[in-house]
Amino acid sequence: MSPQGQVETVPADGLTTRQRRNRPLLIVHTGDMKGKSTAAFGLALRAWNQGWPVGVFQFVKSAKWKVGEENAMLALGRLHELTGEGAPVDWFKMGQGWSWLQRGPTDDHAEAAREGWEQIKSDLAAQTYGCYVLDEFTYPIDWGWVDVEDVVETLRNRPGHQHVIITGRRAHPALIEAADLVTEMTKIKHPMDAGQKGQRGIEW
Amino acid sequence: MSPQGQVETVPADGLTTRQRRNRPLLIVHTGDMKGKSTAAFGLALRAWNQGWPVGVFQFVKSAKWKVGEENAMLALGRLHELTGEGAPVDWFKMGQGWSWLQRGPTDDHAEAAREGWEQIKSDLAAQTYGCYVLDEFTYPIDWGWVDVEDVVETLRNRPGHQHVIITGRRAHPALIEAADLVTEMTKIKHPMDAGQKGQRGIEW
Repeated sequence: MSPQGQVETVPADGLTTRQRRNRPLLIVHTGDMKGKSTAAFGLALRAWNQGWPVGVFQFVKSAKWKVGEENAMLALGRLHELTGEGAPVDWFKMGQGWSWLQRGPTDDHAEAAREGWEQIKSDLAAQTYGCYVLDEFTYPIDWGWVDVEDVVETLRNRPGHQHVIITGRRAHPALIEAADLVTEMTKIKHPMDAGQKGQRGIEW
Repeated sequence: MSPQGQVETVPADGLTTRQRRNRPLLIVHTGDMKGKSTAAFGLALRAWNQGWPVGVFQFVKSAKWKVGEENAMLALGRLHELTGEGAPVDWFKMGQGWSWLQRGPTDDHAEAAREGWEQIKSDLAAQTYGCYVLDEFTYPIDWGWVDVEDVVETLRNRPGHQHVIITGRRAHPALIEAADLVTEMTKIKHPMDAGQKGQRGIEW
C-alpha cells in the first residue's frame, strides 16, 4: 500500500486520480483496544505539519486522560504562533469534568453532547479547520444523544477540504458505511490483564 | 479500564501496585492496517509531555512516509530547547533512502539494520531516552537481520525506566511474548479499496 502502489480497483465515479487523491476523508478508529485516540492524534501531527488548522473535540471521560496529547498539541499551536510553522490548534472539552463511564449517561451530558455537535456543525460549515478529531464521539451517537443520520448527512455534505477523524468503540454501522477509512484496534495483550494499573505517560 | 478501575487479576510478583504501575513497558503495535506507527507517535506525545526524552528509530521504506510526524515531533523538541517545556526529541532514520518494500532485502540493508540495533542497545544501556519508538522494527527481525533473542534479552534486561514501542507487521512470537501490551490494527475499510491513492497529510 505505498503511495506509488497499484490500487485494487478503479472506481467509475468520474473523478481523476488527482481529484480522488485530494478528497477529504472521513476516518473512523474503533474497536475495544486503546490506540484509537492515540492514532488520531498522530494523524493530527501530520495535519499540523501540512499547515492545516487542527480542531480537537473531546467527548471525554475525565480531564485527565488525554492531557499528554492536549499539552503537546497545544504546544504545537503555540509554536505556530511563535514561528509560523505548522498550523493553529484548538482543543475543546465538552462538559469538562464529565465522567461518562463512571456515572453513566444523564440528561445534562446529553445536552452538552448535542451542544458540542452543533459547534462542530457550525465549524464544518465555516470550514474552520482542515483536520477535526471528534474524540470518543461514537458514544453520544451510540446512546442516541446525537442523531447518527444528522451526523452522516452533515459529514457527507461538508464543504471544502476538511478531514474528519472519529474515535470510539461501537461505531454505528451508518458511520462505518459513510467512512472512507475504518480501522479496528484489537487487544492481543494488555498489562491490566497481569494486574497492572494505568500509568502516567502511557495511559494519559 | 479506567486508571481507578479494578484489575482483572493480582499478580504474585512480589511488587507493590505502585512498583507495577511505574514499570517500564514494552509495547508492540502490529497488524496489517495503518495506525501502528501513528499510534506510537501519539504515545510519544504523552512521553514528551511527561518530560521524557524521546528517541525515534525509523526502519523506513522511504524518507517521505513519516515526514509529518517527524517535523511535528522535532518541532516539539525545538520548543523544549526554547522554553523548557516537554523534553528533547531525537529522530534517526537508518539507511536514509532505503526502500525495503520496493527493492526487497539486500545485504547492505541488513548491515544498516544491525548498526541501528547496536545504536539502540547502546542508548538503552546509557538510558538516553525515556521513550523509544522503534518504527517498523519487526521487519529486520522478520528477515533475520537482527536476532530476536538478542532483542528480547536486551529489552528484558534494560535498566531504569525506559518505555519501548515497536511497530510493524508480523511481530515475532517471542516479541509478543516479551511485550507488556500488544495491539493489532485491523483493516475494516480503506480508501485504496475504492481506487483512491495515498494523499499528503493523511498517508505521510
